[in-house]
Amino acid sequence: MQFLSDNAAAVHPRVWAAMQAADAADAPYDGDGLSRRLDDAFGDLFGRECAAIWVATGTAANCLALATLVQPHGAVVCHHEAHIEMDEGGAPGFYLHGAKLMLAGGDGAKLDPGTIREVIDPIRDDVHQVQPHAISITQASEYGRCYRPGELAAIGSLARERGLGLHVDGARFANAAAFLGCSAAQAAGPADVLSFGCIKNGGMSAEAVVFFDPAAADLARYRRKRAGHLQSKGRFLAAQVLAMAEGDLWLENARAANAAAAEIAGACGERLMHPVEANELFVRLSPEERSALRAQGFGFYDWGAEAGRFVTAWNNDPGAVAALARAISGL
Amino acid sequence: MQFLSDNAAAVHPRVWAAMQAADAADAPYDGDGLSRRLDDAFGDLFGRECAAIWVATGTAANCLALATLVQPHGAVVCHHEAHIEMDEGGAPGFYLHGAKLMLAGGDGAKLDPGTIREVIDPIRDDVHQVQPHAISITQASEYGRCYRPGELAAIGSLARERGLGLHVDGARFANAAAFLGCSAAQAAGPADVLSFGCIKNGGMSAEAVVFFDPAAADLARYRRKRAGHLQSKGRFLAAQVLAMAEGDLWLENARAANAAAAEIAGACGERLMHPVEANELFVRLSPEERSALRAQGFGFYDWGAEAGRFVTAWNNDPGAVAALARAISGL
Amino acid sequence: MQFLSDNAAAVHPRVWAAMQAADAADAPYDGDGLSRRLDDAFGDLFGRECAAIWVATGTAANCLALATLVQPHGAVVCHHEAHIEMDEGGAPGFYLHGAKLMLAGGDGAKLDPGTIREVIDPIRDDVHQVQPHAISITQASEYGRCYRPGELAAIGSLARERGLGLHVDGARFANAAAFLGCSAAQAAGPADVLSFGCIKNGGMSAEAVVFFDPAAADLARYRRKRAGHLQSKGRFLAAQVLAMAEGDLWLENARAANAAAAEIAGACGERLMHPVEANELFVRLSPEERSALRAQGFGFYDWGAEAGRFVTAWNNDPGAVAALARAISGL
Amino acid sequence: MQFLSDNAAAVHPRVWAAMQAADAADAPYDGDGLSRRLDDAFGDLFGRECAAIWVATGTAANCLALATLVQPHGAVVCHHEAHIEMDEGGAPGFYLHGAKLMLAGGDGAKLDPGTIREVIDPIRDDVHQVQPHAISITQASEYGRCYRPGELAAIGSLARERGLGLHVDGARFANAAAFLGCSAAQAAGPADVLSFGCIKNGGMSAEAVVFFDPAAADLARYRRKRAGHLQSKGRFLAAQVLAMAEGDLWLENARAANAAAAEIAGACGERLMHPVEANELFVRLSPEERSALRAQGFGFYDWGAEAGRFVTAWNNDPGAVAALARAISGL
Repeated sequence: MQFLSDNAAAVHPRVWAAMQAADAADAPYDGDGLSRRLDDAFGDLFGRECAAIWVATGTAANCLALATLVQPHGAVVCHHEAHIEMDEGGAPGFYLHGAKLMLAGGDGAKLDPGTIREVIDPIRDDVHQVQPHAISITQASEYGRCYRPGELAAIGSLARERGLGLHVDGARFANAAAFLGCSAAQAAGPADVLSFGCIKNGGMSAEAVVFFDPAAADLARYRRKRAGHLQSKGRFLAAQVLAMAEGDLWLENARAANAAAAEIAGACGERLMHPVEANELFVRLSPEERSALRAQGFGFYDWGAEAGRFVTAWNNDPGAVAALARAISGL
Repeated sequence: MQFLSDNAAAVHPRVWAAMQAADAADAPYDGDGLSRRLDDAFGDLFGRECAAIWVATGTAANCLALATLVQPHGAVVCHHEAHIEMDEGGAPGFYLHGAKLMLAGGDGAKLDPGTIREVIDPIRDDVHQVQPHAISITQASEYGRCYRPGELAAIGSLARERGLGLHVDGARFANAAAFLGCSAAQAAGPADVLSFGCIKNGGMSAEAVVFFDPAAADLARYRRKRAGHLQSKGRFLAAQVLAMAEGDLWLENARAANAAAAEIAGACGERLMHPVEANELFVRLSPEERSALRAQGFGFYDWGAEAGRFVTAWNNDPGAVAALARAISGL
Repeated sequence: MQFLSDNAAAVHPRVWAAMQAADAADAPYDGDGLSRRLDDAFGDLFGRECAAIWVATGTAANCLALATLVQPHGAVVCHHEAHIEMDEGGAPGFYLHGAKLMLAGGDGAKLDPGTIREVIDPIRDDVHQVQPHAISITQASEYGRCYRPGELAAIGSLARERGLGLHVDGARFANAAAFLGCSAAQAAGPADVLSFGCIKNGGMSAEAVVFFDPAAADLARYRRKRAGHLQSKGRFLAAQVLAMAEGDLWLENARAANAAAAEIAGACGERLMHPVEANELFVRLSPEERSALRAQGFGFYDWGAEAGRFVTAWNNDPGAVAALARAISGL
Repeated sequence: MQFLSDNAAAVHPRVWAAMQAADAADAPYDGDGLSRRLDDAFGDLFGRECAAIWVATGTAANCLALATLVQPHGAVVCHHEAHIEMDEGGAPGFYLHGAKLMLAGGDGAKLDPGTIREVIDPIRDDVHQVQPHAISITQASEYGRCYRPGELAAIGSLARERGLGLHVDGARFANAAAFLGCSAAQAAGPADVLSFGCIKNGGMSAEAVVFFDPAAADLARYRRKRAGHLQSKGRFLAAQVLAMAEGDLWLENARAANAAAAEIAGACGERLMHPVEANELFVRLSPEERSALRAQGFGFYDWGAEAGRFVTAWNNDPGAVAALARAISGL
């Protein structure tokens, strides 16, 4: 009964099927028929022209996206708990050739115009200080919180006003869209580029980077190759992404994970550190309580000394979810 | 009847089976049971201690390998037709932070101590000139030629004498080992690190980087993460690599491809630009002859104005191979 | 009556004289007789073997120093108000190929083992998080505070214990040594490498980087060339450094600047935001008071809304210093 | 009687005088009155709007210039004997974040449209091959050869046609302009950016980078700071550049050096490996002949086994020049 993470869950059968259907040799790299369908698939999903590329990890997706917005001497404003700051082993420094991450605050690991301004307003416009070139937000955030369309619009306005690009890290974008009950376009807001996550949502090894400025995608294609991310059997990545995005699988899987999280959340009451808006739960639990849950077979990470983090996935067993909810209620 | 490349061939059924067997969730990244078996699998294969990591492409494998041998202010000596120079979109410049490739010659895209010395001997030992830090050779070479153990030893001696690391790009290492009829260790020679190819040999999306100095692997693990190449469902890459390397599949597949190439070579006679030692054929063919072959349904790349390149794969249809041989004979 | 900064003050006559004496052609780069004296000059000054190179700016000095201690995938722990973080235009990100600065706190812009541990202790030893490779401290600090030998020893112990290099940014090292009344070696503490400032102390365009591990200097020599900092008429930089360091000029000039600062400090009383230990004063002054001082001809920078920063230099006119002290007393 | 290089010659008295006149404190970095005059000085010299910055070395000048034209995944086409390839310690790889130098041929170390096309025409327009972003030529070349205005125009046309930037390395630009007897603008041709050399021509430690697109200079200002090349007493560099460029000193000094070279060339006859168009002579001399010259007190570098390289400077003693001419004649 694992609730450690969605990042290692099994692959959805329809993703497997799509991969197997792609087995016959086709043109290498991204010249195959499936890869060539990505732009249209995401154009349909977002209702506007876009260009999309596959890539094997969320870290690569985020970094390739940011590399189209940020020059080496610039910076990205992000939350101090953002994945790009905390969990990507310095990949942004590598991909952006030493550009800086500027760390801002905000409840629930969400930025807002005020916290962004706190960071960028004091920066003198001179060469002695690194200048911001882009903002990166995470939808849903590291604490499973979702930006509402109005919040996205406000950040987008600030970005435009200051000449900054806007990147959305959507490792759990589907969970956000499912929670918000809005269109993909509304959940992405005025992003210039979106990391559209599949792996945590039933995929195996493919994320999409969706560029709302197709010219940026051309740049990213060079950078993807240069980063060793242009797989020769790229059709297998395209197949995964299309299996997700051409139909509703991305939403179905996210809804399942969200529903499981909501069911557990219902049992947590005051224990919840953050409202549950996606598929992550941060639950106040004493060490003894955590031990008790583990003794019952539940897997999860400690979150500091007095809490645990539970993540649901597209394929959680309903029985296990119900059991966890009961177990927490019963503590 | 495709002979365009082995790089987009179908995936071997035993690789598929291994991936499917890995579906159940395990620890993420390279903490799973399969990934933890890599060191031993390659230790057994090479008969000495080594540490191995998976990575999604040959480009990433080569660059992560080289990054353990070369500092940003140094250089790699490689053949002027090497993949790292010609076909990797500048990835070495990215991964090595601006280190240089020093281009040497040699028949059949193979280096030898003489051609290496031609490049490095004129370099003054001062800060004005970039200094070589490593040598990279390709086994089998871009022209499908294999380094004999004695040739490897000679290059290794030179490397040691000059304090240079030695990397072997083994995108088609299995084809070389199959041709040489020697052990994996003999085919790798005194390499410090080997890119062990699987993708062109029936894999989907996993190569191995084999470090004969385990400490170098620790460094490469940081760099792999930093390059966005640490996949969270890494078990699927480990599964592919183990399916290849724990048994004889790597050799079986290579033997099949080599045999197909040999059969076609037998029909080429004087047309061959290079002896066929692996699974690539460079065949002198006039434009009219190439058109004639294509009219019969054979796919292959032009190689300059007066030749074609044919690459066989693990799964070439025997009938198609025989047909191609006949067609060339009949020109 | 300028107290804006010591960084643009006139050049000391003995530095001018040394430069002029170096006019006759000598070997280029650092092959001249003066450059070859640097190692010994600093060996004498610090009482132990060291290797020293000249470089044109403090930013380059700091970055070349750090590049010998930090790999691209690592990090430097520094104060969040350190010059390398705030004022060097992202140069560490460039020179360290994307390595990170990890920002710690501490009174007076000084680190201590506790504040360093706050930053490094939570870092998991895995590839997902950037690992610290070095600590950089500033002697005297951005607020003109000096590390005592015991404080240096404590930081050095922590560095050794954790396998971290220790860099001292000594843009105002002379001011610190003058204040502490200790030897150069004591003021540098267990540093692996020291940026020894000359420019703010009466030099024109030369700082020294002093490596207490001579092998590190060899690496830095390559990196200096690669950064375009190996001047062909390097003898003029060596001349400046030797004029400073072979005799007592570095101390004389610093004592003069410190004495001027102390005289002004005596007039500031409760207005001082930081004890004055070098040649910088941070003085609480209302906007009206700042206007009044400026109306009397005193130049200085605002420091936030309610203070001013005054920096003395080796050549402050005693009358101007006394006048400033009187003017502040009279507010 | 040194003819080793112009790169370590004494500083011209008018440069010294300009530096001394700049001693009084002014605004730091490039905010001083002298630095602010650079744009106009070069605007006047080149007869069109431009923006110019000072920098301490030719290597930094070249690299900062190229960084405005070339992205990290691109390449610079240059001669295989260009300074940026042979003598800058890999600085372009550092400043351009791993971009590549593509090496072309051409007599006298000069490129021409044909040799450039030989390199760029075979490059497929796909992500597997690094794409050229700029061309860099050297005026005068490494062999002291000058591009005529028509040659520059032809290269410029090719550059525009292919969307490539054009950089001119003018470490000895003054010598070229003096030889060509044309305006500065004609000698620079359709360059986007010019490294305007002063150091080899009587300066101490300042070159100018002249951007004919002022927006590029804004980018370069950030990169200069980031490279640790923004000196706080920048007025001393501006003073040097202005002493050269505001009057005719740049031409006077170059004419003197060229005249000395011409005088020696007159004695060399068939010994000359290259026509002497600037201030460098490559003279066929046997080892015995070189020994004989050295025995007479002449300093110069060997150039391979059968030649010597002689470089004249602004301040060669007429007697020494005549003596060298006589000595060569007398061999």
